[in-house]
Amino acid sequence: MSNNQSSLDNPSDLRSLFRDSKLICPTSGLAAGYVQTNLAILPKKYAFDFLLFCQRNPKPCPLIEVIEAGKYTPIQSAPYADIRYDVPQYRIYENGTLSKEVDNIADIWTDELVTFLFGCSFSFEEALIESGINLSHFENKKNVSMFITNINTIPAGVFSGPTVVSMRAIPRDKLVKTIQVTSRFPNVHGAPIHIGNPEQIGIKDINSPDFGDINVVNEDEVPVFWACGVTPQAVAMKSKPPLMITHSPGHMFVTDIKNHEVAVI
Amino acid sequence: MSNNQSSLDNPSDLRSLFRDSKLICPTSGLAAGYVQTNLAILPKKYAFDFLLFCQRNPKPCPLIEVIEAGKYTPIQSAPYADIRYDVPQYRIYENGTLSKEVDNIADIWTDELVTFLFGCSFSFEEALIESGINLSHFENKKNVSMFITNINTIPAGVFSGPTVVSMRAIPRDKLVKTIQVTSRFPNVHGAPIHIGNPEQIGIKDINSPDFGDINVVNEDEVPVFWACGVTPQAVAMKSKPPLMITHSPGHMFVTDIKNHEVAVI
Repeated sequence: MSNNQSSLDNPSDLRSLFRDSKLICPTSGLAAGYVQTNLAILPKKYAFDFLLFCQRNPKPCPLIEVIEAGKYTPIQSAPYADIRYDVPQYRIYENGTLSKEVDNIADIWTDELVTFLFGCSFSFEEALIESGINLSHFENKKNVSMFITNINTIPAGVFSGPTVVSMRAIPRDKLVKTIQVTSRFPNVHGAPIHIGNPEQIGIKDINSPDFGDINVVNEDEVPVFWACGVTPQAVAMKSKPPLMITHSPGHMFVTDIKNHEVAVI
Repeated sequence: MSNNQSSLDNPSDLRSLFRDSKLICPTSGLAAGYVQTNLAILPKKYAFDFLLFCQRNPKPCPLIEVIEAGKYTPIQSAPYADIRYDVPQYRIYENGTLSKEVDNIADIWTDELVTFLFGCSFSFEEALIESGINLSHFENKKNVSMFITNINTIPAGVFSGPTVVSMRAIPRDKLVKTIQVTSRFPNVHGAPIHIGNPEQIGIKDINSPDFGDINVVNEDEVPVFWACGVTPQAVAMKSKPPLMITHSPGHMFVTDIKNHEVAVI
């Protein structure tokens, strides 16, 4: 990688590298301190139902910004960005099936497309680490474990389905602090939705995640579950829209908003 | 009023009285402890833009619930209510002009109508009073003063316009507590958006409100301004939709949600 560290720390410089395809990589650890988002782009026909789904299910679907049909500038979160180029890698789904992975979507862009940007757990993980809470999946260089639960989302129009959660193993003596810290960040999934008993939310085997990596929960740790940004993508996919565009896993959109700006207090 | 006190304290009983037109009155002080909402009903054609407007402007437009086109049950906030009957009084606007005031909207209801319920300041006022902060407009039996400001909302589609604020005179030694308490309630307008200098937000004369009553700010008090639920109604009206239905001022929809349930922490 020939890019110097400073351009990897600055959202605007980093997006330029993605825009010019000089860099294609996961964004974890880059532009530290800035909000990164999940991406879902859908045809206008689905936009009201999907926006309503997000309004009804803010924990799995915490909206950072919605861009009107045909527009590609995230005016609130990154006013000089172009959503067609500035995500490191995109996935194109046709009728609910992955058709390809690309580094820009300029050639398939139409005036019919509405863009949804969702807060991601990177923001609250940073806040946890700053508060002295070690996250073992980071130390083990693994992705979090994700599970499909028995907790239904509130349906809206054509959209419905189960909540997907991410699990982090938290030392028992850090449990209260973990809840306090993440409660400040409702726009990036916020407080956990379950603590301690995977079976109660429909998870049969904590060592057999539906997505992500296996993460061992040690004796002195408690499994803590957060609503996960995979939920809106999974729910949208289920309705098999003719076209849907998302970011490739881990290849997030990097905004100009600082993590502390999305804290409620 | 022949109704005993207990039916005025209970949201369900109270809505029954409104439903049967046995009672038509402002709802301030009724069903204490429960969230009351502002109402805006718009044709489906406007629904995505208006929902997006609310998403972009959560302080003036804090959504409690949105009900899909043609449906009249607020499943999340009052699952046994009927939005066509259960508001004490409605206003019908045609092309942006008030055409009549009615006690139900059953005869003009269509499958094209989408209902928006917004949190209202009654919830945070109750929290302020419980925290020992006297609100002089209550003591003087007046409505709050409301002003059109120079703070623009973030436009969405056909919707745009200035933020309307409500003003409360707060004793200077209660200012910090006031901000702390209201910060816990982002779903009912939340923290103030301005403190102390009306001119800075475009208010020329604090004794000449655009809506509501005049409220004197005493020597030891500071004028504090909150984003107001009049904003979405004013903004929607400006676009002159063929039909728009709101509650009559002060005649709110009473939900089954307790005020403390909408607190973020």
